[in-house]
Amino acid sequence: MERSERVVLENMCMIRDGTKVLVEDKIGEDCRGIIFPGGHVEKDEPIVDSVVREIQEETGLTIEDPVLCGVKNWIDEDGIRYIVFLFRAEKFSGTLTSSSEGQVFWVEIDQVLDLPWIWGMDKLMRIFAGGEFSEFFLNAKDGWAPLMK
Amino acid sequence: MERSERVVLENMCMIRDGTKVLVEDKIGEDCRGIIFPGGHVEKDEPIVDSVVREIQEETGLTIEDPVLCGVKNWIDEDGIRYIVFLFRAEKFSGTLTSSSEGQVFWVEIDQVLDLPWIWGMDKLMRIFAGGEFSEFFLNAKDGWAPLMK
Repeated sequence: MERSERVVLENMCMIRDGTKVLVEDKIGEDCRGIIFPGGHVEKDEPIVDSVVREIQEETGLTIEDPVLCGVKNWIDEDGIRYIVFLFRAEKFSGTLTSSSEGQVFWVEIDQVLDLPWIWGMDKLMRIFAGGEFSEFFLNAKDGWAPLMK
Repeated sequence: MERSERVVLENMCMIRDGTKVLVEDKIGEDCRGIIFPGGHVEKDEPIVDSVVREIQEETGLTIEDPVLCGVKNWIDEDGIRYIVFLFRAEKFSGTLTSSSEGQVFWVEIDQVLDLPWIWGMDKLMRIFAGGEFSEFFLNAKDGWAPLMK
């Protein structure tokens, strides 16, 4: 029985330094707002390697020991499932450097949601916090009603 | 740019009751051995819902608040990626009931690896334990060399 489906795999990481977290003022094709940095998982690439690589590209920092804390996933109008693996990291090295994807900067963790966030960051913050929820799910067919699991 | 790939989504859950965990003596088409129960994520199904459903089907128990603790994933010979979402659960209700997938029974957690386990359970136990690793990755192209991330 064919069990596979078409999936786009992505990653995102909350890098924490004491009470501060690193945010990105994302400049996308059709969006602009505050997110945590991240990007795509390449074909054949381990998921942890993908988040280390994307964070290096978008922030200049090399994270160590990222911990998976949850997943955001949604079913698009065309039936493709998008899965974003959500990581936390507290160990890193390197010099903070923004990329063409958007400016990166540190903010107090309790002020993240005062910024012009996008992509359901209010829901994701509850997953990054740990323990309460593991999944943020949406389905275009259901009018994008947000579900926390 | 087309970013999607063909993926099979699965789940597995370590249900813990004090010092005991629930194992399954899996009866598969081409395998037999000790695993934790789990199964497939259906198309359009939230991942957390899928693990609650599969655990109900295979153990008779209804788990609550499963926590995502890591992921096993591998690239098969045909290039398809298999992703198993690994959950822990400590809250459950119902009466333990085995299914045709295999007998389920409680064992002391430190004795799981003394049983005839399969599917890299030794690696997975280090992920279920939490904190140390988030990912177990294998690629057929690399001769299935196991990587812990």
